[in-house]
Amino acid sequence: MEELKLPLSESVVSIIGMGLMGGSLGMALFKGGFCKEVRGVVREESQALAVVAAKAAHVAGTDRKRLLGEADLVVLATPVCSIEEEILSIQPFLRSGSVLTDLGSTKASIVNAMDKLEGDIIAVGGHPMCGKETSGIGSATSILFEGALWALIPTRNTRPHGLELLLELISVVGARPAVMDVERHDSAVACVSTLPYLFSVALMAVVSEAGQDNEFVRELASSGLRDTSRLAASNIRMMKEIIDSNRGHVQRILSMSLQRLEDLGHLLTNKDTKGLCDFLKNAKEERLRLFPEGVPEAIHGPGAPRGRG
Amino acid sequence: MEELKLPLSESVVSIIGMGLMGGSLGMALFKGGFCKEVRGVVREESQALAVVAAKAAHVAGTDRKRLLGEADLVVLATPVCSIEEEILSIQPFLRSGSVLTDLGSTKASIVNAMDKLEGDIIAVGGHPMCGKETSGIGSATSILFEGALWALIPTRNTRPHGLELLLELISVVGARPAVMDVERHDSAVACVSTLPYLFSVALMAVVSEAGQDNEFVRELASSGLRDTSRLAASNIRMMKEIIDSNRGHVQRILSMSLQRLEDLGHLLTNKDTKGLCDFLKNAKEERLRLFPEGVPEAIHGPGAPRGRG
Repeated sequence: MEELKLPLSESVVSIIGMGLMGGSLGMALFKGGFCKEVRGVVREESQALAVVAAKAAHVAGTDRKRLLGEADLVVLATPVCSIEEEILSIQPFLRSGSVLTDLGSTKASIVNAMDKLEGDIIAVGGHPMCGKETSGIGSATSILFEGALWALIPTRNTRPHGLELLLELISVVGARPAVMDVERHDSAVACVSTLPYLFSVALMAVVSEAGQDNEFVRELASSGLRDTSRLAASNIRMMKEIIDSNRGHVQRILSMSLQRLEDLGHLLTNKDTKGLCDFLKNAKEERLRLFPEGVPEAIHGPGAPRGRG
Repeated sequence: MEELKLPLSESVVSIIGMGLMGGSLGMALFKGGFCKEVRGVVREESQALAVVAAKAAHVAGTDRKRLLGEADLVVLATPVCSIEEEILSIQPFLRSGSVLTDLGSTKASIVNAMDKLEGDIIAVGGHPMCGKETSGIGSATSILFEGALWALIPTRNTRPHGLELLLELISVVGARPAVMDVERHDSAVACVSTLPYLFSVALMAVVSEAGQDNEFVRELASSGLRDTSRLAASNIRMMKEIIDSNRGHVQRILSMSLQRLEDLGHLLTNKDTKGLCDFLKNAKEERLRLFPEGVPEAIHGPGAPRGRG
């Protein structure tokens, strides 16, 4: 089978799912004129107008056969739990030699489905590390991917041309690619993305409980709690799907974190000053290594409740 | 004993400890001309010049007798673990009828020491809920207190005039006062300030461990982890003192948080979708109640490591 090695500029890119992620990708490609045409696949015909009006696609609609059949690159941007099924259902519409990727946050079941694709479809798992707490085309922005890391996970159906096309796509939208295997991707996501979310959630549960008989708990909340609990405002359906689709790694990482918190508890109980200082020092060093430039921060709590005005 | 009921504008304010907190308070009072004179007490004579140059005090030095003897209001802004001892040591220098307060983050031992003061000293515990990860006069700023909540904890030696003077001080520097008892203050601080710090620290410990055999852990770190781990960069000596001086409440709150994380673990193990969704939903509702305006956030991870540039 002939492999059409079109560059991105001559490619038709079809995006399935025009929410925050898919819509933002469409906008970035449309705005920069980086590909021949952007086509958007939506669930309901009524959504097509908003997608075209937002300049997230040149054409949009629900007719998968028409919108996918001529695509050189198909991007699955639907919720992570739906992607595996989508891969199976769209297979008949994909033309031989076309490239398929996705934007799902966890990769094991998706890459597994991509491995099984037939008909010379070139498939590469993808995960741009960016997002917002809000969702939908109304939250989409062409700059969403700027500066973000974009993980690429090769499958049995990955060919050099597919990787090259995606590296070009990632580059033009301002992201940075990193090719990695599925196991280490999913394990890392559980650690750096899901665990911070679960910590935020647990923090809010404690505040809720402690606030029941102490009104000053909520009153004293300031920037530290605000930043640490930001992720608790994330989309629940999305986070539930990310957890469900990566349960093994999430459970393992959660257990690790319980161990570390219990270690902290023992250091307190034993009044082990040296041990506590070492623990805090190592954490600070890891933080400074990870984020040497720190973070632009409020110096007080503008987000604190204003109960006493 | 006559009680000199001077308003703040006619008061001499002496601040002991001219670091981030004391220096910022001095700057705010100096800049606004809110009091008659600001006097700064430093540890080493060599620090006095920087304090005066930063306009954090009109005069500064190490001579406590001279700098405190004429003060109408004395503010203890030294590290939290030193305040109890400071209260005892400065007592001989304080004039009868003067007001004493402090800026310490935990209050039980401080309020206890204030309770025992003699010689008609008016004493009120204080805790402005603001700060920075950086410390010292070089980090001080006159706007540090703007919008912050400032807890006031009455002692046995609190008189109306002392509270009034502090309410005026809090108001002119742009903060909001909240009067509360020591028990609920220290319990709330453990929950909304120390626990988020310990969670940040535990997160960094897990990342450090998981990153040892998976280089993608650090590579995938983005804005979620960055915000959730910001507090791990805090001053270790300061945090250790805050923990030490409030160990009982911190241990209790840490236990509560372990329970909640274990609850999450059980929901995952049991594949209890309904239970998990309820847990996430309650946390999101608490977060939206606490911080209805959300938080200005980066949409991707500009703070992520640039290993692959």
